[in-house]
Amino acid sequence: MAIRIFITGGTFDKEYNELNGELFFKETHMHDLLELGRNKTPVVITTLMMIDSLEMTDKDREWIVYQCNQAAEDKIIITHGTDTMAETAKVLAKNINNKTIVLTGAMIPIKFGSSDGLFNLGSALAFVQTLTHGIYVAMNGRYFNWDNVRKNKLTGRFEELK
Amino acid sequence: MAIRIFITGGTFDKEYNELNGELFFKETHMHDLLELGRNKTPVVITTLMMIDSLEMTDKDREWIVYQCNQAAEDKIIITHGTDTMAETAKVLAKNINNKTIVLTGAMIPIKFGSSDGLFNLGSALAFVQTLTHGIYVAMNGRYFNWDNVRKNKLTGRFEELK
Amino acid sequence: MAIRIFITGGTFDKEYNELNGELFFKETHMHDLLELGRNKTPVVITTLMMIDSLEMTDKDREWIVYQCNQAAEDKIIITHGTDTMAETAKVLAKNINNKTIVLTGAMIPIKFGSSDGLFNLGSALAFVQTLTHGIYVAMNGRYFNWDNVRKNKLTGRFEELK
Amino acid sequence: MAIRIFITGGTFDKEYNELNGELFFKETHMHDLLELGRNKTPVVITTLMMIDSLEMTDKDREWIVYQCNQAAEDKIIITHGTDTMAETAKVLAKNINNKTIVLTGAMIPIKFGSSDGLFNLGSALAFVQTLTHGIYVAMNGRYFNWDNVRKNKLTGRFEELK
Repeated sequence: MAIRIFITGGTFDKEYNELNGELFFKETHMHDLLELGRNKTPVVITTLMMIDSLEMTDKDREWIVYQCNQAAEDKIIITHGTDTMAETAKVLAKNINNKTIVLTGAMIPIKFGSSDGLFNLGSALAFVQTLTHGIYVAMNGRYFNWDNVRKNKLTGRFEELK
Repeated sequence: MAIRIFITGGTFDKEYNELNGELFFKETHMHDLLELGRNKTPVVITTLMMIDSLEMTDKDREWIVYQCNQAAEDKIIITHGTDTMAETAKVLAKNINNKTIVLTGAMIPIKFGSSDGLFNLGSALAFVQTLTHGIYVAMNGRYFNWDNVRKNKLTGRFEELK
Repeated sequence: MAIRIFITGGTFDKEYNELNGELFFKETHMHDLLELGRNKTPVVITTLMMIDSLEMTDKDREWIVYQCNQAAEDKIIITHGTDTMAETAKVLAKNINNKTIVLTGAMIPIKFGSSDGLFNLGSALAFVQTLTHGIYVAMNGRYFNWDNVRKNKLTGRFEELK
Repeated sequence: MAIRIFITGGTFDKEYNELNGELFFKETHMHDLLELGRNKTPVVITTLMMIDSLEMTDKDREWIVYQCNQAAEDKIIITHGTDTMAETAKVLAKNINNKTIVLTGAMIPIKFGSSDGLFNLGSALAFVQTLTHGIYVAMNGRYFNWDNVRKNKLTGRFEELK
């Protein structure tokens, strides 16, 4: 069965608006990245929202939980802004226990040339195929359980709580 | 314990010589890629050789087996040219059974902008952390057991034998 | 005699701060671009300021005029934010008449992969070597006289006044 | 009147064939580069051939001369392999004296990320608009008269004969 990929926005998909110098969302770059990686694992891509994760509300997270539950697939990748990735992981863990869900994202927009997005996507796709049911964050070449992860605001890296 | 990364060359590390228009090897780009991916998984990188895998000899493969056996780590990634990746996997499988070894590479050199190398590296790092002992090929977002993989020469993609 | 290159900032040199998602200035990328272009025209590079051109004050423009007058070279390139490039050109024209000065910049930061900066720099270097004394803007593959140029805010392109 | 751009191939337009690891020609990347540079100078692009300049014959050069003469435009850019760029310039100079023709190219293919092609194109476009009738080579941020230029095979840079 295919892997479901849910897009929620985050730095991963941000672009530079050359008219006003601001970052904004247009469409996801997921298809381009999978083509670049010559991916042959079957995937189904659905954009749920295109927002900065600092602006993600409880309602948005409910919607993500609902979509994960509704999905026929039990392997799910969610692209997500890094700032509240751990928070969304917690909400998912409280509501879903029969799927492998991997949240990932990027520190630099994919369009900016020096992004970590392609690397993170490669690892997320591998982790979702091999980890047992549970909610995980895949960043920095590692995976973290939902209840033992935070983003270090000073370094920008993900780490265990203890 | 750290993950050992052995470099053997292949398209992954090829560069363009602007004086004669030929492809050649200088140094591995592994460090740059891991930095780009903001990798925080501990790794130890060792260059064993820098060759096109079509020129890899039995002696070279013996050397790779020897190094894998000597390594203190039981999780090993080998970057390798795609043309004979499956062949080297077979030799490793005949000689090593207590380690997780993942071979990976790239269809386009990392230096050429549109490479799949960063994606493949991300997936190889994830697979080596999660798969049980055995010899695997990680390409196209998938992993293959050593005894069920070949590169399709027409499409350039890896596939199962049956 | 060498060409003088004055750096004043602008989109050209902006970078993405991965910790807070904002654009900022670090150092100029001029040296990297000239190396990328395999430039062999002798140049002397001086950073005068690193600011967004919307924040450029009369005092800043005085400083630029002063530096252009002080420079031993009579061929000068100024990198500049696009929003007020035409305004600075006017101030220069009122104060300098014995030099060829070409202002250029970029719509997309050089670090973002899809920048026009390298193209603009190539054209500015060529224009400064071939145009007679005067103040010019070099953008969009064209040059404009200081008294007949504006940035079209809707299209982001430079055009003649009439 | 528009600038005519004639494509003849060269490193500029080479691509990497991921199935056999060889460099080859598909289509010109001129349109992409002009878009990247946000070029607004009117141009007409015609592909005359797609060959390595080491394989360019007298017959090929006759064809280029013929096309330059036939063109309605008196400003012409020719993309060309660097190895025999100076040779083609000589042939053009013997046959054409009422046009400004600028030959340019690249040391690294445009598709390879670290190419000088965009820089060279920017300078060629500027030189062709500002230089008087004659045959020129535009490389390394400079222009050379047809009778005073050679490619230094050791450094890969263009230089005057004396």
